[in-house]
Amino acid sequence: MKLYFSPHSCALASHIALEEAGADFEAIRVDFASNEQRGEAFLKINPKGRVPALVTERGILTETPAILFYIAQTHPTAQLAPFDDPFALGQALSFASYLCATVHVAHAHRTRGYRWVDDVAAIEAMKKKAAGNVAECFRLIETEMLVGPYVLGERYSVCDPYLFTLATWLEADGVDPTQFPKVLAHRKLMAQRAAVVRALKLHE
Amino acid sequence: MKLYFSPHSCALASHIALEEAGADFEAIRVDFASNEQRGEAFLKINPKGRVPALVTERGILTETPAILFYIAQTHPTAQLAPFDDPFALGQALSFASYLCATVHVAHAHRTRGYRWVDDVAAIEAMKKKAAGNVAECFRLIETEMLVGPYVLGERYSVCDPYLFTLATWLEADGVDPTQFPKVLAHRKLMAQRAAVVRALKLHE
Repeated sequence: MKLYFSPHSCALASHIALEEAGADFEAIRVDFASNEQRGEAFLKINPKGRVPALVTERGILTETPAILFYIAQTHPTAQLAPFDDPFALGQALSFASYLCATVHVAHAHRTRGYRWVDDVAAIEAMKKKAAGNVAECFRLIETEMLVGPYVLGERYSVCDPYLFTLATWLEADGVDPTQFPKVLAHRKLMAQRAAVVRALKLHE
Repeated sequence: MKLYFSPHSCALASHIALEEAGADFEAIRVDFASNEQRGEAFLKINPKGRVPALVTERGILTETPAILFYIAQTHPTAQLAPFDDPFALGQALSFASYLCATVHVAHAHRTRGYRWVDDVAAIEAMKKKAAGNVAECFRLIETEMLVGPYVLGERYSVCDPYLFTLATWLEADGVDPTQFPKVLAHRKLMAQRAAVVRALKLHE
């Protein structure tokens, strides 16, 4: 498999999951500085012009939740998602959906406001509200979602690299992570895992 | 089970999926006009203050992709998701993730800009760009994703009620659906299904 990624983007979650699964893969860096993700060659891989994209023997998958659960289902011995328990799997999918549709979107209003508005003043207005929105998301994660020590409880899952990845953006988003002790403990626990250390080396 | 919904919101997708599955459920309308979704009683059901929320015997699930795939996995005879084929399931999850994280978000910038910005002029600027963004999403769905006649091809899945639901918003978003003949054909095909007719009756 080939994972197309940009350093410290949400593709880090898929990258860590591949390491956790012990998957045979190559990580290929897409150069956002030169806008490679919008270039003709990359658009053939992912017409959305985004990362992550996972090239498998069956075809290409995009969108972080899809890639994470595909890695989990195809590497069952790593036990990265509770496919044997529909309600637990529902909770895991719910968590991943919240991160992609709400948390990542709240963050993107600080860095990529041009996606949703053309007006320069409006883009600046978006940036002002982003920190509060991201903080509100993490308050909900802290109080309602993160069971601890891992997202789903004692059982590690693909939800963990996904949360870890978005939690590493907190300081840049202007959010003080010390107000979320469970999230912070999770981030520290994750940073010590061999798979995380290995994946992060390619994001330097 | 109990499905909390608001008429013509994205909860319609879960509502149709429950009908397709032949599930035993009660649909409970949440009154957005009186802001019931932000009230104390509903926040106990879903602290996010959003619909859909599905009350199951094991607990409550939120987020459309999670609810859709939970319904599919717990009603296997209805064959609503390819759980037996990891790559096909990955494609289904990828489609659902795109709808929740990109398409629904593009639409929400027309109707709920206040989520991401406080400035009135900025909210108006967002509305101006929303139609173009929604159209761009549906162009990608039309050319790259919707296999036809159903989203995944010949096999009906929970992706279909999800696409149908968001496609019913096109005209209100200021997007001419006739530029997307496959999406339009899918919408017509879906509108004829008994499960869709039954679900829509409660959204009148």
